[in-house]
Amino acid sequence: MSTSAHAGSTAPPLYQEVAEKIAHLIEEGVLRPGERVSSLRRVSQQYGVSLTTAIQAFIWLEDRGLVEARPKSGFFVRAARPVLKEPLMARPPRAVREVTVGALQSRLFEAAMLPHILPLGGAVPSPELLPMVKLNRVLASVARRSGKRGVSYDMPPGTELLRREVAKRVLEAGTMVLPQEIITTCGATEGLMLCLRAVTVPGSVVAVESPTYFGVLHALEELKLKAIEIPTHPRDGMDLDALERALRTHPVAACLAVPTFSNPLGALMPDAHKERLVSMLAKREIPLIEDDVFGELHHGPQRPRLAKGYDEKGLVMLCSSFSKSLAPGYRVGWVAPGRFYERVKTLKLTSTLATATLPELAIAEFLATGGYDHYLRGVRSIYAANLRRVGQAVAAAFPDGTRVTKPQGGFVLWVEMPIGVDALRLQDEALAREINIAPGPMFSPNQGYRHCIRLSCGVPWSPRLQEALGVLGTLAKRQLG
Amino acid sequence: MSTSAHAGSTAPPLYQEVAEKIAHLIEEGVLRPGERVSSLRRVSQQYGVSLTTAIQAFIWLEDRGLVEARPKSGFFVRAARPVLKEPLMARPPRAVREVTVGALQSRLFEAAMLPHILPLGGAVPSPELLPMVKLNRVLASVARRSGKRGVSYDMPPGTELLRREVAKRVLEAGTMVLPQEIITTCGATEGLMLCLRAVTVPGSVVAVESPTYFGVLHALEELKLKAIEIPTHPRDGMDLDALERALRTHPVAACLAVPTFSNPLGALMPDAHKERLVSMLAKREIPLIEDDVFGELHHGPQRPRLAKGYDEKGLVMLCSSFSKSLAPGYRVGWVAPGRFYERVKTLKLTSTLATATLPELAIAEFLATGGYDHYLRGVRSIYAANLRRVGQAVAAAFPDGTRVTKPQGGFVLWVEMPIGVDALRLQDEALAREINIAPGPMFSPNQGYRHCIRLSCGVPWSPRLQEALGVLGTLAKRQLG
Repeated sequence: MSTSAHAGSTAPPLYQEVAEKIAHLIEEGVLRPGERVSSLRRVSQQYGVSLTTAIQAFIWLEDRGLVEARPKSGFFVRAARPVLKEPLMARPPRAVREVTVGALQSRLFEAAMLPHILPLGGAVPSPELLPMVKLNRVLASVARRSGKRGVSYDMPPGTELLRREVAKRVLEAGTMVLPQEIITTCGATEGLMLCLRAVTVPGSVVAVESPTYFGVLHALEELKLKAIEIPTHPRDGMDLDALERALRTHPVAACLAVPTFSNPLGALMPDAHKERLVSMLAKREIPLIEDDVFGELHHGPQRPRLAKGYDEKGLVMLCSSFSKSLAPGYRVGWVAPGRFYERVKTLKLTSTLATATLPELAIAEFLATGGYDHYLRGVRSIYAANLRRVGQAVAAAFPDGTRVTKPQGGFVLWVEMPIGVDALRLQDEALAREINIAPGPMFSPNQGYRHCIRLSCGVPWSPRLQEALGVLGTLAKRQLG
Repeated sequence: MSTSAHAGSTAPPLYQEVAEKIAHLIEEGVLRPGERVSSLRRVSQQYGVSLTTAIQAFIWLEDRGLVEARPKSGFFVRAARPVLKEPLMARPPRAVREVTVGALQSRLFEAAMLPHILPLGGAVPSPELLPMVKLNRVLASVARRSGKRGVSYDMPPGTELLRREVAKRVLEAGTMVLPQEIITTCGATEGLMLCLRAVTVPGSVVAVESPTYFGVLHALEELKLKAIEIPTHPRDGMDLDALERALRTHPVAACLAVPTFSNPLGALMPDAHKERLVSMLAKREIPLIEDDVFGELHHGPQRPRLAKGYDEKGLVMLCSSFSKSLAPGYRVGWVAPGRFYERVKTLKLTSTLATATLPELAIAEFLATGGYDHYLRGVRSIYAANLRRVGQAVAAAFPDGTRVTKPQGGFVLWVEMPIGVDALRLQDEALAREINIAPGPMFSPNQGYRHCIRLSCGVPWSPRLQEALGVLGTLAKRQLG
């Protein structure tokens, strides 16, 4: 496996160009499973290449599991591999855990900053998929017009226009949150941190999904909180019976979940589950921190409901941001912390005092003028297609027995490989080939999920990406011997 | 005392216009103490107003202590009041304290956001005194040019150009800090918080100046840290003998100080003291968190040295920002945390993940192209003049026995009124007249300094400001009966 696939650095060899064209025909269903691919001679004529090149092209296709040679008959499109199974729900230990993922997170981000790395590690949308030119232009225009306001503090709760736009969007998800119940934050990271600080003290136990976003685990670690991992179904989200048991047996101070397109599983909790989750916690007066950063990135036509929509006691603290859906670098998020509003607002003062004014104003304007909705309509189908193609490529290249999630939103896939693959080693090996991935142990306080990885599919589909997935599969197979 | 002085809302009455012109002549030394002011008739002729108006003008001047009537001789410029004494060093209790200032801080900021309020409360530069048009224009230009980079995360340690520019400026203060030793933050607020979190655990004791910036006290409160207040001289800063005693008697985990133009006193620690401070702490391996947010706002020609300049063991964590000197709303600060670099960088991930990219890039460019230096040269003399004029107005209007600081940098004044004045009540009474001030109890963990206030002089000099200071003086006198 070569590492020559820098975007635009060198052209691929001729045979690969030919092979990719044929692969495209297979992928698009022009050539169907079982169908004979043109003969070597025909390919050589069709693409104006030598017979040797045509042979190399077929070898390339065979290597990737796209065609198979049948003696004396030529090359045939391989029967589509059965679509990979979804992972099963993991059964994390029922114990309360100290958390240590900070080092893994730093490692992931440091790798992400290296040049030429294919960024399948962080769940960060590729700038090419963001409305960067339009949004930056709005910011430029706002900056020129803003005068005093642009350089001045925008003290908590933050810009009213933005809070109004957010309230409107939340209403579209069927939930009534007033602008005056919202506080802007420096991304959802700050929002989650403020919510956790508002409702816990060092030593408190927080119930989280398993696997769960490493940023959450790192926050727990730094706040000296303990995690109780709740098994989470790859399709339906947190196992509520398991949560119920945990609530009975542990002094849970808060529950933190991503009910809509969880990270890393991409699970979408059904409405009835969301309702049960909220009422189960409310009965015990336990706050739910609902992280909804992927909520706007539904692939289907309908924006899923929020758990916050079932909140009758002000116990649901809803957090989100524009980092997954608009501009990570703007650092604009928000939180609707229910009855903990005053506490969160006060904590915000000691955290960062205020959110940066002009990025807030620019995003508010982009929302108010419809630019955001227009953008979202387009990008949702891109992510849906990306997840499908990555899933197919994983199916083609990864070891037998690999399972992969089928999220209905967001842009991350969770890949469960056969036991025996070491995801941390795989990350190292992949980095040596300029591919970053997020190894499973990052998603658990006790560094479980050693045979799992998360693939971020927030990058445009490209031959390089396709090749990289082949490389990952080969590396994983090699580990299994 | 009327509250009619909204900037531009209604013109002042005619007599006041006349009186202010005469006041200006007195202030500028055209009319000198003891000198006779023109007769009523002369004033009436000179300014083309009725005799009644001229009389009202003299009463206005008399009320403000600028002139005095001598029987049969007319009005004379009052002998300049002896310049007010500086406050004495306070002797805070030597005990370790829990901290509770969060509520006072919220109150201050909420008042600051009301419209029409004259903002003498928060130590925030008025936008009119900031290079807002130029800086916003740079941001607009950067946003248009930035493409991918503008919307992308700028992961810690943050934009290299900015870190290089900061390193150059630190070098100009005689201290060598490399760009790779610096981490950008969302203002100094985040920087201080990260430094405190890096070197303390809940219950740790932190040595602070007394009086000290309420933001620091609020951070201690939220982190459940304890404060030991070190007496601080209004001119020379923290009393190092007192610190030495505290270090002997308390398990101090860190010392947090503003050695250059402290807040609220404006004290400038002499170089020898800075050196002693650093070595005293180093001997015990105690980190010093050096907050230098006012360091660039020296009124004299020389930028004072940093305590960090004496740091041989990497124990000094230098924090600063551009919020006092450029653009509070941009939320860009930085920290050079010495040997705690990795720890602070990791903590930054759970706090806000990254600093907003475009504000960072804009400030970096403003620094690199010389805009910042050009601006600072101008604004330093404005602040120096402002502090002088506010000091004079306080001298003219406040109760006998009032003391006031004489800072050599920054833009805040500390006013110590006679015992008996209640600063919290004064804040209420002032707010009713649309003037915000920072009451002394905000600057101490045990809410001492009840007879003190901090006046922020980061607003352009104006008749409204002059009148407001008169109002404050009258209110204070009234409290004394």
